[in-house]
Amino acid sequence: MGLGVRAAPFTYVAHALAVVAAAMVLYWCIHFRGGLAFEADNKNLIFNVHPVLMLIGFIILGSEAIMIYKVLPTVNHDTTKLIHLVLHAIALVLGAVGIYCAFKNHNETGIANLYSLHSWLGIGTISLYGIQWIFGFLAFFFPKAAPNVRKGALPWHVLLGIFVYILALATAELGFLEKLTFLQSSGIDKYGPESFLVNFTALVVVLFGASVVVAAVAPARLEEPQDYAPIPEN
Amino acid sequence: MGLGVRAAPFTYVAHALAVVAAAMVLYWCIHFRGGLAFEADNKNLIFNVHPVLMLIGFIILGSEAIMIYKVLPTVNHDTTKLIHLVLHAIALVLGAVGIYCAFKNHNETGIANLYSLHSWLGIGTISLYGIQWIFGFLAFFFPKAAPNVRKGALPWHVLLGIFVYILALATAELGFLEKLTFLQSSGIDKYGPESFLVNFTALVVVLFGASVVVAAVAPARLEEPQDYAPIPEN
Repeated sequence: MGLGVRAAPFTYVAHALAVVAAAMVLYWCIHFRGGLAFEADNKNLIFNVHPVLMLIGFIILGSEAIMIYKVLPTVNHDTTKLIHLVLHAIALVLGAVGIYCAFKNHNETGIANLYSLHSWLGIGTISLYGIQWIFGFLAFFFPKAAPNVRKGALPWHVLLGIFVYILALATAELGFLEKLTFLQSSGIDKYGPESFLVNFTALVVVLFGASVVVAAVAPARLEEPQDYAPIPEN
Repeated sequence: MGLGVRAAPFTYVAHALAVVAAAMVLYWCIHFRGGLAFEADNKNLIFNVHPVLMLIGFIILGSEAIMIYKVLPTVNHDTTKLIHLVLHAIALVLGAVGIYCAFKNHNETGIANLYSLHSWLGIGTISLYGIQWIFGFLAFFFPKAAPNVRKGALPWHVLLGIFVYILALATAELGFLEKLTFLQSSGIDKYGPESFLVNFTALVVVLFGASVVVAAVAPARLEEPQDYAPIPEN
């Protein structure tokens, strides 16, 4: 007998890291950065909504949507599919609001938009994510393609989803570093508690994201064939 | 019939992006940054070896090692396994030399070591990569575990490999941004050709890396079962 691998333990690790990452980004934006606001004289508070919504809304909810088939493998498939598409829809909307807050902060403080790799990759990622959602909705939910078309389209949906998810992770890492660099050049200590907090948040996020990808490609149940990454022999 | 998905087209995209990324990092370090050297009065030339070896040596060769079972699916498995482990070994050695050059540059110019997220994640990644290589060598090559142990260990090897690879990608993205920020704060134009080159190189690298992950989880052949990412129905 072999050791066997299934997705469950990776989903547990991912959930735990998600909670830690969410707590860290909130603590950073509220304790160190002064809190969150959609309207404020202190425009920094508007910016602070951006990392919170992108991480908790876009990445963490999107990750939970990705993992739902592995988290609830025994639940009725129509139910998990509905949770999958609703969570992704919420993630998309919160992501769009988060991006809006970055633009709003820039526009109200006269900072240029869209000059950084973070911004380009982020716009590209959420656009692909939106296209993927619409495609998935039409093909798998309503009006729903014919069964043989769905069967053929499913692997593309999964693989494109993993592709876009990796872009989202890279965007998040770039965002943390970019913001931290701005803060350090306007005076915060490179070795101080806030720098450590931001760096460790980014570290937790990349460990979280890599766990989500592994959970997504690992089988939900041991009895399923495990050739998701087919290497003919060993 | 379905559309069908196999790894081959993703490997073609990945190879093409690898060539582009390699050319871009060389053009950057040679044309804009003055070239490469292991010993030089201009210590920047020693640093320049770092991005070149990390990208072309560590990431691109490591990616080709990961994809080899998809690139040569019809070749004898012992041969592809040998290429896999040799390419990963070369990637590890070149990666270690690349990291050494960053330390050497820091030490010879009085820059502190290991204060950034890029450095922490990088050291962690290459350490895990080395552990993964040793484990893989012992289990699958020499002395080689019993067939049932190999069968059980293989999915862990694949999943841990994907996990470490995503960490490597994130490290690379952080490295490009960190170096570009240093250059911009010491005077290069934020909208100038070098900034665009570095940002676009990092963009090509993340698209490359995401393609490699997709190629790694897609089946080599259409006739293989495609439940590498098992979602029960569609």
